[in-house]
Amino acid sequence: MLDTALLDDLGRALGPGLRLDQAALEAAATDDSGLRHPPQAVFFPRNADEIARLMGLSTRYGFPVTPRGAGTGLCGGCLAREGGLVVDTTAMARILSVDTINGVAVVEPGVVTKTLRDAAATVGLFYPPDPASFATCTLGGNAATNAGGPACVKYGVTRDYVLGLTAVLPDGEILKTGVATRKGVVGYDLAGLLVGSEGTLGIITELTLKLIPHPREVRTAVALFADARAAVAAVSAVMTSGICPSAVEFLDRACLGLVTELLPFKLPGDDAALLLLEVDGDPDTAARDIGRVAAICRDSRALSVLPADDAARREQLWDIRRQTSTRIHESAPVYLSEDTVVPIARIPDLIDALPGLAQRFGLTVYAFGHAGDGNIHVNVTGEAGSRERGHALVRALVAAVLSLGGTMSGEHGVGITKQPFIDMELSPRSLALQQGLKRLFDPDSRLNPGKVLPR
Amino acid sequence: MLDTALLDDLGRALGPGLRLDQAALEAAATDDSGLRHPPQAVFFPRNADEIARLMGLSTRYGFPVTPRGAGTGLCGGCLAREGGLVVDTTAMARILSVDTINGVAVVEPGVVTKTLRDAAATVGLFYPPDPASFATCTLGGNAATNAGGPACVKYGVTRDYVLGLTAVLPDGEILKTGVATRKGVVGYDLAGLLVGSEGTLGIITELTLKLIPHPREVRTAVALFADARAAVAAVSAVMTSGICPSAVEFLDRACLGLVTELLPFKLPGDDAALLLLEVDGDPDTAARDIGRVAAICRDSRALSVLPADDAARREQLWDIRRQTSTRIHESAPVYLSEDTVVPIARIPDLIDALPGLAQRFGLTVYAFGHAGDGNIHVNVTGEAGSRERGHALVRALVAAVLSLGGTMSGEHGVGITKQPFIDMELSPRSLALQQGLKRLFDPDSRLNPGKVLPR
Repeated sequence: MLDTALLDDLGRALGPGLRLDQAALEAAATDDSGLRHPPQAVFFPRNADEIARLMGLSTRYGFPVTPRGAGTGLCGGCLAREGGLVVDTTAMARILSVDTINGVAVVEPGVVTKTLRDAAATVGLFYPPDPASFATCTLGGNAATNAGGPACVKYGVTRDYVLGLTAVLPDGEILKTGVATRKGVVGYDLAGLLVGSEGTLGIITELTLKLIPHPREVRTAVALFADARAAVAAVSAVMTSGICPSAVEFLDRACLGLVTELLPFKLPGDDAALLLLEVDGDPDTAARDIGRVAAICRDSRALSVLPADDAARREQLWDIRRQTSTRIHESAPVYLSEDTVVPIARIPDLIDALPGLAQRFGLTVYAFGHAGDGNIHVNVTGEAGSRERGHALVRALVAAVLSLGGTMSGEHGVGITKQPFIDMELSPRSLALQQGLKRLFDPDSRLNPGKVLPR
Repeated sequence: MLDTALLDDLGRALGPGLRLDQAALEAAATDDSGLRHPPQAVFFPRNADEIARLMGLSTRYGFPVTPRGAGTGLCGGCLAREGGLVVDTTAMARILSVDTINGVAVVEPGVVTKTLRDAAATVGLFYPPDPASFATCTLGGNAATNAGGPACVKYGVTRDYVLGLTAVLPDGEILKTGVATRKGVVGYDLAGLLVGSEGTLGIITELTLKLIPHPREVRTAVALFADARAAVAAVSAVMTSGICPSAVEFLDRACLGLVTELLPFKLPGDDAALLLLEVDGDPDTAARDIGRVAAICRDSRALSVLPADDAARREQLWDIRRQTSTRIHESAPVYLSEDTVVPIARIPDLIDALPGLAQRFGLTVYAFGHAGDGNIHVNVTGEAGSRERGHALVRALVAAVLSLGGTMSGEHGVGITKQPFIDMELSPRSLALQQGLKRLFDPDSRLNPGKVLPR
């Protein structure tokens, strides 16, 4: 698609931001999905005008362009599946403003999520979305995928914080949409539509984000239950108690088995389930609320409840959750990370279905995630050569999740990996409208082609 | 458009839900905008299938259809501007479920907002969006306009609570989109796009709404300031204190002059401004937080701060806010209600600009609203025959608001009244994309024609 003559032309037009060296191509060839699609060139723009120039060249020569942030996605959404050029926005990493009076931040897409969270915190403000990769992922990628995280149970997802944005459209025109204020309803919500579109409609070059008052204290507890059903009953009891927890994380028995030495208690029976619960607010409130959450868990037949009394203890409890994820990933050569959501009441049904799926496909299945949102990450592992069986298991899992009233993705997106299943979830008319939307923005399908919608 | 023969056909096809009597036509001719556009027929469907049948007939015969909820909108969005038929969804008013475990409600579009709020509260759950008309407006209308209200400063707008929806498309097909769960990112956000589209893309027939834990207590205070600038400085101080208030309402001096006998203090000087602040949470927290908010206001040079000590006193304070709105409306025969938003720091600049506008056009201008969001309702009144001057003032106001970095509407929408100004705010490319979206959903422009986008 990009022959040598064209690459020479691009080099002249785009300057030193264009990289053709093997190191650059290899770095852009993968994300956290395990897939590999090396591009033919990588462009590191410094501003929207450079991206507009790039898309003008793409329009003229007809080559595909795939936008990329930090490459922490789990679905291959930032990979150059159809070749062509990757535009890597990580060099556009300025926080343009954190406005304490208006409660609004303006950022370039390459700002790392944690960087904004830290900058806001120093002035008493809070940017809540906290995907697991928040220390390395970028806000542009978060917006492109409508990223979530543990805090979403209380604070909502990335889309709830995007007030406005600037994006380069596939034909190179720069679109500014949404508002610079904390509210706005004029016209159709193009900003909200670009959020979660996985880089298929436009390349985000600036985001205006809502900030909220920063909670002054966070308190954490873990509670152990005999099984997932008891844990989920406790989630429901907490969520209707008047307290809105800022995290309700769940780990199933298989996960707990990987981190036994980190657990502050001995595991009972074969079906144990753990909840990690967090509350925030001012110090007195947080202290009292975590006590109430602990009491509710005990009333809901928790076998053991352990609040964290200080920051170090809190880190220990979160380490259980983080190590689970790491150890699953490292436990086997084949690793698939799914992102299912079911109505909270159906979490036990989902958990109950997993051993059968594992056995049927000869694989191991772990389940953990954001129980307060019903967003359970089902992780599948297997020996080398089992990837195909893994995909078959995932297809069966998606069918099961949909039959429980759920969705195949709560926060990771579709990308490449879930694309084969999208017509299991969305109706033909919904897909037809979405394909119409794609054509409206990108009639030649040059921007992140081969993603999300059926090919 | 609808001749007698066609009306007879429609009557046979649609049954007794179709009304042609003068009372029905007159009731559907107006909303709270002051405009009047009588339709030729009004249809009261009982379910989505009946609306699908209607839209099938509209497709076949080519007549326009305008959806309508309770008719509390302020922009003429539900009026049959181009004639044809109004579909009034108020008879579809069932709460289909309030699921305490999943924290999700499923409702028909005609459910009154307060009815859902009350139903959720009885099981410890909270549906936050609270437009001023929440005791009479419908959730379908709230979703169609992405309605806001005082609580949005803490809890976000209607769109943040719409997880999924069902809508009848202009060709009569029923589209189910979004999720039944608390999270989902599969495909483009068609549900979010329909929210705020003011009934121009589809007719909402069912909504799946997110519910959150109900705060157990609300505490209120009012604070008087020498001028708007001092009041806004206090807003900023509160919003960066770690407390997220659940309402931050503002009244300017002109408003206060209408309700002097309701005020718990004497007005100073010529530029006074009032804040009504509210916090929620559990009883101890709310009591302490309102004390802290009061202290912050005093530190910010409030002339007087009065917390409400009980529910009766709280009602008295809110009555100041409500009576302001009522008395403005009743103060003059011509009344225009604007819905501007500016960055919070620019509220004083907006307030400062109003006397000049009032004088230039020979009208009276009042400003009140949701200061914590920068959403200031500018109300214009004048003697009989001054409506044209009012529109000229509004055009100048919109220009001023845009120059301050704001938007012409934070929560009311565009409808008919703001349509003449939309190209002052949105770029040609944004409008072109939005017109493309409209064509994608409604190629014949039969659904709520003549609204929102430039004609």
